[in-house]
Order: sequence, then structure tokens, then C-alpha cells
Amino acid sequence: MPEKNIYDLIIVGGGPAGLSAAIYAGRRQLNTLVLAKNIGGQMGISDQIENYPGFDFVTGFELAQKMFQQAQKWGAQFEFREVEKIISQENTFVITVGSGQEFSARAVILAFGLTSRNLEVPGEKELQGKGVTYCATCDGPLFKGKTVAVVGGGNSALESVEYLSKLASKVYLIHFKNKFTAVPALVDRVKTIDNVEFICCARVEKINGRNKLESVDLENIDDGPAKKKLELDGLFVEIGYRAKTDWLKDFVELNQSGEIISSRDGKTSRPGVFVAGDCSDSQYKQVVIAAGQGAVAALQVYNYLVQKQGKKILPDWGKARST
Amino acid sequence: MPEKNIYDLIIVGGGPAGLSAAIYAGRRQLNTLVLAKNIGGQMGISDQIENYPGFDFVTGFELAQKMFQQAQKWGAQFEFREVEKIISQENTFVITVGSGQEFSARAVILAFGLTSRNLEVPGEKELQGKGVTYCATCDGPLFKGKTVAVVGGGNSALESVEYLSKLASKVYLIHFKNKFTAVPALVDRVKTIDNVEFICCARVEKINGRNKLESVDLENIDDGPAKKKLELDGLFVEIGYRAKTDWLKDFVELNQSGEIISSRDGKTSRPGVFVAGDCSDSQYKQVVIAAGQGAVAALQVYNYLVQKQGKKILPDWGKARST
Repeated sequence: MPEKNIYDLIIVGGGPAGLSAAIYAGRRQLNTLVLAKNIGGQMGISDQIENYPGFDFVTGFELAQKMFQQAQKWGAQFEFREVEKIISQENTFVITVGSGQEFSARAVILAFGLTSRNLEVPGEKELQGKGVTYCATCDGPLFKGKTVAVVGGGNSALESVEYLSKLASKVYLIHFKNKFTAVPALVDRVKTIDNVEFICCARVEKINGRNKLESVDLENIDDGPAKKKLELDGLFVEIGYRAKTDWLKDFVELNQSGEIISSRDGKTSRPGVFVAGDCSDSQYKQVVIAAGQGAVAALQVYNYLVQKQGKKILPDWGKARST
Repeated sequence: MPEKNIYDLIIVGGGPAGLSAAIYAGRRQLNTLVLAKNIGGQMGISDQIENYPGFDFVTGFELAQKMFQQAQKWGAQFEFREVEKIISQENTFVITVGSGQEFSARAVILAFGLTSRNLEVPGEKELQGKGVTYCATCDGPLFKGKTVAVVGGGNSALESVEYLSKLASKVYLIHFKNKFTAVPALVDRVKTIDNVEFICCARVEKINGRNKLESVDLENIDDGPAKKKLELDGLFVEIGYRAKTDWLKDFVELNQSGEIISSRDGKTSRPGVFVAGDCSDSQYKQVVIAAGQGAVAALQVYNYLVQKQGKKILPDWGKARST
């Protein structure tokens, strides 16, 4: 029987942290597999990026594709799977994906970013992608001339309302308080838009529809609105992000927000397992910061493997594989 | 008398860390001045960059110019001066440049990278730029068909020899040991090049020439070569880099290598003074890592000014100034 393939490194996540790590690992000639749901992560669905140094203006999709191709050029392999489980077994880490398939590696970089928070109300799961969405930038254009609502009170919710008001015929903003965490100037600006209506002190209780969103039931909070049912074509849930780390809670140390606790150089509480980007406990979540952390994590993995297994030291400037 | 202009932020250094910090500071509408010797730092003189995520291949010059223009677009101002002194004075920092001119700011980011090490022998200073150089990539083409020597035993020295052997008629490698810190494969490859001659166990003692390099005197070490004088058109000093932080030694804490000690979020030992990139004590020195640290430092400065002086909180996605 052939010996099972053991990678030097598995990177979980295909956003800027994971792709940068893949570039650096490939240049060190580590045999690297990236397991990702998609390419780009949150970056990939950003309409416009103006703060990644070197690009005056680039879409998230374009930047993600560039990094993806660069990682492939340096030899990284990709499998588009959702990771479900990780265990440590005889000096290797075994990762199980949704289909039950297992992948093994000598080191791991966790770089799967943050995931949109769900409302966790009846009907939400059933109508995802059928009117219920978590990304105005991605899905806004599908609702031209329609009636939509945004749930949330932060910058991304208010930004989404402003953006959608230019496409949809009517935009409701549903927020459970009458105070907003978004910057005041933005709130003021959105309040003046003709086709926007604020529904404050209300919570979405239930999402209704068969195959397609039809309406939401609202629950009043304190002196909330009289309206109990809102007919909608689209519902944009913009209530923030969370680190989806339940599957890691017995594997590496997490902070109270569920983020992976890390050293400044991307070490987790478990030797051989490193972290980069937004799923770590680092304070700032930005594309270039995640990319920098990805590079650090890959260089750490390299040093870890050199020390542990006597891998030959290679400079960073090794030549690209001729693939 | 008009009140002296006090910037929100002065960034010292124009490499990837400084330019990234300038982009982020500008987007937060901080009134920002960059004091730099040049644009790009070490990145700017890199012949080819293949590991900056998003660019399959880019020259250091081109990447530096892109970041420079992006920082200007977001409102950062630039003065091309060498910084000599910094003091803390009544809630502001006062920086003196070579000409004696002073600039003041409420916060500072130190991002001036590393500087090539000098040989510190007679004649070196006088003949800099007149045959004595510290960058094969920059100055190699000036020595086509000439006789040159490289001093050093690390990767950058051996890489320089390999590169120069294609341009110069003869390349000497002068190294004070007969062992090299460069990767063995590279040393072996360079040893086979016809027009390359290794001079091991020798040190450059004196550099000779009037207005233009003519020769170097060598000092034998142990069983070094008999040759005492070497006629040369070019001398490439490739003996590594150091943090040029003498002017900061009573201002912020430095480590034994002279690097600025920093927290993972770019804080130095002095409140209001932050650090990013290669002049910090972070382990890995790479363009994308420096750029990520620059972004972190700028966001830290912003939070520092908000807390200290009640600056209005602005999201990162503020609009570009229409300049």
C-alpha cells in the first residue's frame, strides 16, 4: 500500500493571510496544501480596496486572484473544502473536511478569517441565498428596484444602506436600539436619503417565504414601531463577524471572542500550529496586516520544521518551480 | 507671529513600512509628514520582488513609486531630509533634520529600516559613490567589463558576485574567513564561475584612490593570500545591515543589535512613539511584513490621538482627498 501523503504544511483559509502564507511557504519549497472554502475570504467580496499598499484601486476579486495565481506559481496546492476537525496524531496533524476526507501535515497555519454573524432566527438558514444575504457589495445588484432591509447598527450596516439606496426602490434599516455604533456623520448622511426608512428598537423574529424571501416578522423592543410584518425582496444581515472556532476549542487556546490567542510571531498554544489574519487575536483586521502575518507564519513554520526535522535551510529567494 | 505647524504624525522613513503607515494615516485624515532620505528604502533598490502578495513580479522601484503615489493621494506630505535628532517637548515631538530645520508632531512612527554596514576603513568615506558602493543591483551596470571585488560571506555577497560576474570582466570575493554563511549550494555555484576568484582569510585594510577608486590594501588573516594590493574599478561592500539608531539611544529602548524594542502592536518604550518595519526588533524582515506593521502603527497612532486629544473617530474607509 502506498504511504499516505503527508504535507509539510496545511494552510486553512484562502484569504490574504492564507494566500500570503502559501506564497512564502512555496518559496521555501515546503510541500503546501491550502484548504479553503473559497479564494479571497472577506477580501474577495470587497467591492473596492484602496488601502492595500501598491494598489491605488483594486477589486477584492482581482487582488484575490492575483495572490491565488502567485501562490500556485510557487507550488502551493489547493483543495476547496470546508474543514471540520483537526487532531494531533504521531507528530502530524490530521484535518478532516466536510466529505470525511482526511489530509495530514507536519505543521498547520490557521488563517480562515472571520465569518458573518447570523441572526439565528427561524427561516434564516432555509432562505440563505434566496433573498437572505450577508454581503451588500456582492448581492446588492440583484435587488435593483426592489424592497430590501438591512439589519444592524454599525458602520457596515449603514454603509450597506447607503449603497443599496442607490439600487433598491426602498431600504429599511432594522436596528434593535435607537443608538448606532456607526460614525455619527455616516448615520446623519443616511438619515437624509429619501428612500431609506429607519425601524429602530425592533428585532427580526422570523423570516418567511417558500423558496424565496417574502417577509420578516418584527419583535418590538420598548417603544419600537407598530409594524409587525415587513414585506421584503431582500434582507441584508450586517451584524458583524465572528471567529468560527468552535471546532478548535480543545485544540488551541481561544480568547473570549473566540479568536485564536497568538504570539506576535503567529505561534498558538500548540507547537506546530500557527495563526495569521483575522481569526487571530491581533487588534487590527486589514488586508495588508493579514498578508504580513501570513508571511510571518510561513517563515515560522519553516523554522519549526528546520529545527524539528532538519529540513535544509533555503533562502527566501529560491527560484519558482517551472510549473 | 504665526503658530508653528504641528503635524498629527511624522513618519521617519520612506520604505514599505513608512509608506504603508502614510497611506493608513492619510485615510484617517491625520495631518501627516514623511521625512525620508529617499523613497523605497531597501525595497526601492531591489531588482526584482516576487514575494509581495498581489505582484507576480515587480521591480522595487516600481512598487515604491506606487506606494508613494498612493500615500500622496491620501494627503501625506513628504520632505526628503535625513533626520538627526528627536526630543520630546510639551506634548509634542520635535525632529531636527540635517539642515537644522525642525519639524513637530503629536506622534511619531519610526520606520527607517536598516542601513548597509560600512567597512569603516581609511578611504571608504571619501570614495563612496566613486567606486565604493553598497548595492550590486543598483550600481552593477556601471562596471561592465571592469575589475571589481565584493566584500562579504553571506547570501547577499555571494548573490552579488554571481550577478556581477555577468557584467564585470573579473570579480574577486574578499572574505575574512574560508567558511561562508551563504547557503552551500550558492557558494558551490559561484566557485565554478570562470571569472570569479575567491580571496579568503583577508580583510580590506585601506581603500586607495584620488576622486576615484584605484586599489585596496589587504590584510592577511592566518594563512591568507600573499597578494597585498588589489587594483580595482569597483568595490561592493556586502557585509550586512544594521539599525542606525545611535541618535535614539536615550529616547527609546533598543535591543543589543540596536533595533527598537516594540510590542506586537508597534509601541515603543515611549508613549506616542511607534515603530514599524526593519528597524524594529521583529524577527522577519520582508516587504509585506513591514507594510503590515506600518498599517498597524498608523492605526495605533490614530487610537493614541483619539484617546489623548479627543480626535474624532473616523472609519478607515474615509474618502480620498481630491488632490
